[in-house]
Amino acid sequence: MTFSIQNMASQTKEAANVVATLTTETKNRVLMTISANLQAHSAKILAANKLDMEAAKKNDLAESMIDRLLLTEERIIAIAKSVEYIATLPDPVGLVTKTSLLPNGLNMSKQRIPLGVIAMIYESRPNVTVDAASLCFKAGNAVILRGGKEALQSNLALADSIHQALAQFDIPLNAISLVPDPDREIMNELLTLSDDVDLLIPRGGENLIRYVTENSRIPVIQHYKGVCHLYVDKFGDLEKALKILVNGKVQRPGVCNSLETLLVHKDVAKQFLPIVAATFAEHKVRVHACEKSLPYFENADLATDLDYDAEYLALEIAIKIVDSYDEAVTHIQRFSSGHTEVIITQDISLANKFIRQINSAVVMVNASSRFSDGGELGLGAEIGISTSKLHAYGPMGLESLTTEKFVVIGDGHIRG
Amino acid sequence: MTFSIQNMASQTKEAANVVATLTTETKNRVLMTISANLQAHSAKILAANKLDMEAAKKNDLAESMIDRLLLTEERIIAIAKSVEYIATLPDPVGLVTKTSLLPNGLNMSKQRIPLGVIAMIYESRPNVTVDAASLCFKAGNAVILRGGKEALQSNLALADSIHQALAQFDIPLNAISLVPDPDREIMNELLTLSDDVDLLIPRGGENLIRYVTENSRIPVIQHYKGVCHLYVDKFGDLEKALKILVNGKVQRPGVCNSLETLLVHKDVAKQFLPIVAATFAEHKVRVHACEKSLPYFENADLATDLDYDAEYLALEIAIKIVDSYDEAVTHIQRFSSGHTEVIITQDISLANKFIRQINSAVVMVNASSRFSDGGELGLGAEIGISTSKLHAYGPMGLESLTTEKFVVIGDGHIRG
Repeated sequence: MTFSIQNMASQTKEAANVVATLTTETKNRVLMTISANLQAHSAKILAANKLDMEAAKKNDLAESMIDRLLLTEERIIAIAKSVEYIATLPDPVGLVTKTSLLPNGLNMSKQRIPLGVIAMIYESRPNVTVDAASLCFKAGNAVILRGGKEALQSNLALADSIHQALAQFDIPLNAISLVPDPDREIMNELLTLSDDVDLLIPRGGENLIRYVTENSRIPVIQHYKGVCHLYVDKFGDLEKALKILVNGKVQRPGVCNSLETLLVHKDVAKQFLPIVAATFAEHKVRVHACEKSLPYFENADLATDLDYDAEYLALEIAIKIVDSYDEAVTHIQRFSSGHTEVIITQDISLANKFIRQINSAVVMVNASSRFSDGGELGLGAEIGISTSKLHAYGPMGLESLTTEKFVVIGDGHIRG
Repeated sequence: MTFSIQNMASQTKEAANVVATLTTETKNRVLMTISANLQAHSAKILAANKLDMEAAKKNDLAESMIDRLLLTEERIIAIAKSVEYIATLPDPVGLVTKTSLLPNGLNMSKQRIPLGVIAMIYESRPNVTVDAASLCFKAGNAVILRGGKEALQSNLALADSIHQALAQFDIPLNAISLVPDPDREIMNELLTLSDDVDLLIPRGGENLIRYVTENSRIPVIQHYKGVCHLYVDKFGDLEKALKILVNGKVQRPGVCNSLETLLVHKDVAKQFLPIVAATFAEHKVRVHACEKSLPYFENADLATDLDYDAEYLALEIAIKIVDSYDEAVTHIQRFSSGHTEVIITQDISLANKFIRQINSAVVMVNASSRFSDGGELGLGAEIGISTSKLHAYGPMGLESLTTEKFVVIGDGHIRG
């Protein structure tokens, strides 16, 4: 019999009704069993991963992709530990977020419920299989996992460990479904199943996210890019500014919460930019500078709008001197990707104005953009970062994998 | 110069930055001025409406559509009063929904912010122009209004009153933009402007909603239909059940929170259905009954799956006898539109089980489905009812026109 993604989706939807009503205790016991299974089956998982690795080398996959694909004993233990960590997080399902007794005696409340069926579409990292499955499951959802073809054998082995845990607790295996066929046509069909799938979460490069958005009517959590700005105000503490600038640009340039543009108030440019130039020279950061700031840097080139729009994800930055706070805000509003923006200032009025005026997902005062992360902001684990404002905006934890229903309790109430 | 919807959308986006930072006080004063203007300009508005009415009659529009189009002195006063009412509602913008001091001393909070630019696409009711504009504005959003061509003259006159109020407070007129050209191609272009428009709210028939969803990549608030169920359990109080059944089906059958299907436990069918039959005969409700319940009704026909799936919006109902609570839940899960479901029972365990198991937007115990409405549930005003789970689920008030951002305040914090 050939594989049918439509059948898998219907069965996952049925399983979602079961997962939605599991107690927190049961869900946590399942997660602990998944973790134990992963560690117990590590030899089998590593053997499957070896097949993927061999195929990847034969197919001349990029070095960075091969590293993402690789599993080791240590990586499996880390994956298992993160499942245990998810078991320790509070369960969002059933949380009462509002309750009131209406004038007519009706009792109204709002309660958190699972979204239903979430489809994860991702690339070569096998750890996403376990991560996404655990987060969706803890939030009471069923999930359809569609990983990249490079990781198929690894994913099948990981899913096997997961399914053994589900079976032990009499939970339908389709609570966590893995698409066993990496054919692109099957993925395209998955994107059309809006009756069965409540949410799509693509995890990977911008092309993947754009492809999923363009080809589906199902809501998509989008995270296109992070063009994070640091604005150093004339009342900024330049020591803090430098520390935060270096942390934001140099510590881990390849991630979305790293800095891509530095805006400096003209009154502090003369004092600040020479230090910046020396520091960036030391860290080999390539600079694209505006006309006014260009003279401070050796080997910098003139910044264009393309630079202000760029997510370099590398040791590379755009720098601009602004005449005023307002010019900084206007620049940010024009080029912002809606991810994270930072102001460095000691002026409390300006800090509050910045918080009011900037509506990116994360707005920061005197802190590094690198904190823009679900774990760092106290959400526990993170399923993604949304840069579209609907449903969730910014780092998404377990709560973002749920919605709210109204519960109304009467005693024979009718409307007049 | 020809009209450009792209220009209008860009200007609306710019205006959104202004609206987002207005104080509650200013927004309320603008709303009160809009209300005063509408009443002061009623002669001009009625004259414009007369043009629409004459064209509608010439074009042989349906009677129901003509009634929706009609404005009267009284209707204008009612519209103006509803704007004043929106001014009295609490402002969701700036609401801090979470705040915590993280272990490293960072102060993290979540604050409600406007969505940005909302595009409303609606049909012939001119009151939607004022209603939607006021709700979006109060929640700090700019709005693009695209009403039906039948109501264009009325809408232009209403927008004129609104714009005079905005001008008085030096707010860019594009804070509330009305598309002055009802050409369908212009609407189609609006659906593509995902860089400028954050949310689409279609208000009208299922065809309109489906058209907007199929033709746009912008998030859409969907409200396809309300197939609301009433389940009368064997431990249900049949007196309450009858009152709630009649209220749900007969009071206002044309709205989405009216009842469409009655499920009755077999143990009470013999006692309950004869009374139902007599009552429905009196109210001339047409019945589609399952095989077992068919004998209780005169002139009923046999219900098919099409009946269980139907949103009759008329004095018409599907009835089914179920063998158990579980059968009722299974039926609801299969045919639910995600709108509202009601259980009639005195059994507290079963009531709680129903609340846990049914994940429609509104779940009720011993109360009429007719309460499933933003105003009735204490949200103040309602911009729509969402039956898709993302972003908002169920009746949507002002809060649903906002999202949340993270605000992080440090003192030179960097990530280790």
